[in-house]
Amino acid sequence: MKPHVYKFGGSSLANPERIREAIQMVRCDPKCLSVVVSAFGARFKGDLKATDLLLRYVAKIEQPRQQAKILTQVKARFAEIAAGFEETASFDTNRYWDHMAKIFAANKHADFFITRGEHCMARLMALILGFRFVDATEFIRLERGCYLLEQSKRQAKKIRLAETPSVVPGFYGLTLGGFVQAFQRGGSDISGAMGAELLEAETYFNCTDVNGVLDANPDLVPNAQTIPIMSFDELGEMASRGASVVHSYALRPVRRARIPVIVRNTRNPEHQGTLITRREDIPTRIPGSILGLAGRNGFLPIIISKDGMDEEVAFLATVTRIFADHGLNIEHIPDSRNAITVIVNGKAFRRVEKAIRNDLAKKCHPDSISIGNELALVCVVGAAMREHSGVAAQILNTLASERISVSTISQGGSEISIVLGISNDKYEAAMRALHAGLL
Amino acid sequence: MKPHVYKFGGSSLANPERIREAIQMVRCDPKCLSVVVSAFGARFKGDLKATDLLLRYVAKIEQPRQQAKILTQVKARFAEIAAGFEETASFDTNRYWDHMAKIFAANKHADFFITRGEHCMARLMALILGFRFVDATEFIRLERGCYLLEQSKRQAKKIRLAETPSVVPGFYGLTLGGFVQAFQRGGSDISGAMGAELLEAETYFNCTDVNGVLDANPDLVPNAQTIPIMSFDELGEMASRGASVVHSYALRPVRRARIPVIVRNTRNPEHQGTLITRREDIPTRIPGSILGLAGRNGFLPIIISKDGMDEEVAFLATVTRIFADHGLNIEHIPDSRNAITVIVNGKAFRRVEKAIRNDLAKKCHPDSISIGNELALVCVVGAAMREHSGVAAQILNTLASERISVSTISQGGSEISIVLGISNDKYEAAMRALHAGLL
Repeated sequence: MKPHVYKFGGSSLANPERIREAIQMVRCDPKCLSVVVSAFGARFKGDLKATDLLLRYVAKIEQPRQQAKILTQVKARFAEIAAGFEETASFDTNRYWDHMAKIFAANKHADFFITRGEHCMARLMALILGFRFVDATEFIRLERGCYLLEQSKRQAKKIRLAETPSVVPGFYGLTLGGFVQAFQRGGSDISGAMGAELLEAETYFNCTDVNGVLDANPDLVPNAQTIPIMSFDELGEMASRGASVVHSYALRPVRRARIPVIVRNTRNPEHQGTLITRREDIPTRIPGSILGLAGRNGFLPIIISKDGMDEEVAFLATVTRIFADHGLNIEHIPDSRNAITVIVNGKAFRRVEKAIRNDLAKKCHPDSISIGNELALVCVVGAAMREHSGVAAQILNTLASERISVSTISQGGSEISIVLGISNDKYEAAMRALHAGLL
Repeated sequence: MKPHVYKFGGSSLANPERIREAIQMVRCDPKCLSVVVSAFGARFKGDLKATDLLLRYVAKIEQPRQQAKILTQVKARFAEIAAGFEETASFDTNRYWDHMAKIFAANKHADFFITRGEHCMARLMALILGFRFVDATEFIRLERGCYLLEQSKRQAKKIRLAETPSVVPGFYGLTLGGFVQAFQRGGSDISGAMGAELLEAETYFNCTDVNGVLDANPDLVPNAQTIPIMSFDELGEMASRGASVVHSYALRPVRRARIPVIVRNTRNPEHQGTLITRREDIPTRIPGSILGLAGRNGFLPIIISKDGMDEEVAFLATVTRIFADHGLNIEHIPDSRNAITVIVNGKAFRRVEKAIRNDLAKKCHPDSISIGNELALVCVVGAAMREHSGVAAQILNTLASERISVSTISQGGSEISIVLGISNDKYEAAMRALHAGLL
């Protein structure tokens, strides 16, 4: 029997009430073999998450009074959580944090200290669930920021990770040199995915505080709906275009291991959530049907013109290199023949604009460099759009009927999305119109 | 009074009958100050143009009998032309060609010999028109393939080019070192444009054998119509996307000098042809109206995927550099985020495919490189499309109603065109449907 692996994010572990919901979910699933946890999240808007508090603590290294105040806050939050469960009576979280503060004062090892939120939470959860506590350092092996799959597998086997249910802190691993290292990105999501891969899980449950992956940003589109099933590619497209869901980066281990992911809402366990799986495991959709919308605003189109550039074979390579050298990610290039249009994050561009203009002038000798009006990029995602000419027309008709004009369009060869550049101030209207018209 | 400059292409000078039409056009225009000529063109399908014959002659340098045969053909064509006009009695074209062949045998200077077709034609035309013959070497100055505007201006002044009507051979100039140099591209079109710039012409008449610039390829769309007025940008877009009209490269001198161009049909002098001018001189068009279609087929979409490539800031720069290093022009990049789609000429790609795959594997470590089905790229051109969302929808609706599916779409920030990738075998159908539906 293949096991299930659960990951609970900070919002699912913000206070005893939330934690009880998470516990309930685990107890209802006899297949659950491992639970990966974040540190506590925010309880309400403006509340601080554990990691934010701990990062502040580390930053105030020269201000012991400030540090003491922060430590008091951290202790209070964990004490509140521990007080909610009889099973944690043996674990004095105040003493734990005093001890950790002492260690940090001695070794000044930031990664160690900022990951103690997860560590402490996992210890509490292990007690509550009656599961074995397994530190991430016991089996997640890293080197220079890379995850070492084979070494980690060997360690997991050695410590018999697969034999008894465990709780594991997310967000970090151990370097070959023996140091705790926090993940740059992906946090506990990626720890959970690593655990699922190492345990050859049947399913990885990524538990959060929304009903799965929504088909639009609910802040813009109040009646956004859950996407019941989608592919890793589609998730990647949604996430990279601005949907705030699990980042596809964090799902690489399970994707590689062909383990499906279910994104569930801890607060609404009856809801089926979203199943993310391989493209070939998804039932055929209605041709041309659309899955969801993602978007971001604040982009700038940089239009570089040069008469005859279509004959300079290296022109595009030179331009893209200049943007890369200044650390600017190119969002897309809707035109590259008689004028190159490069769409980039507006704020990031403004920071390096002068240097980029200089380099372009020096290396490309353009006739002109003009900057268009701020754009929002709206991305319509769905693999069933492929080879179905009606969809693009429908998208554009929908926008045209709302008098929203489109300044750039691009649809690539993989055809799981169409990206539209729209005036920044029409962003919300476009999202609502597309959601109403297509979904 | 600003003068007019005329250029006649080879098809307008293929035989005495054609030449009489050209002469008639010049005689009707009292403002005509200079006539730039090509060598004779083809009289019928399969007939050889002067330049083709002369290039063959040069190539057969080791085969004197073959050369003699070719020279006979060249002489016959020029003799046929000379015989058509009394004014040319003083010019023995047979002696001229024997003399040129002797010079070539001695100096082996190919550029000199292959440009003698224009030279001979200009001498004949000067006699017929009673204009002064001015050799291009007297004022068009080049260096390492570049046109030297200031030197050429000085020379034109020195030889008083502006003072009497002249006939000038197209296709070449003189290097600073004193050698005849043929233009790599643009042929007589560019000589005419240079002449117009040097003479500060009011209008440059580019005379050919079609009724101006057509709104579609007449081989695909039988009822293609003349575009009455268009901008240099629009011409550039049409030409670079496959419309076989004057190449925008050849119009650079007049564009720079803000001289409008009229493309006229020597065989149909009553037809107004196409006026190409600056964008700001074009009367306002109906918003959303479309100017014309251009297209080419035989493209391949190369789809380069790599999980996480959207976070590698230099990925796109590396990919585009690899294509440039192998001399491959990238037609467009409709997608560049989670997979890069690069559209290139299929034949050109196949020649360097192995090397490109090797370089991509070595430098980009992609998860996969896949090659899609052959595409035609259809380009819908018209500056009035700008900011008018209805057009793109209309284009896609038109294709959808013919069940032609679109695999890539791109519209750039300059918004004078939309480029659609369509299955190669739907190319003609798409062109016809779009012409019928939009023009």
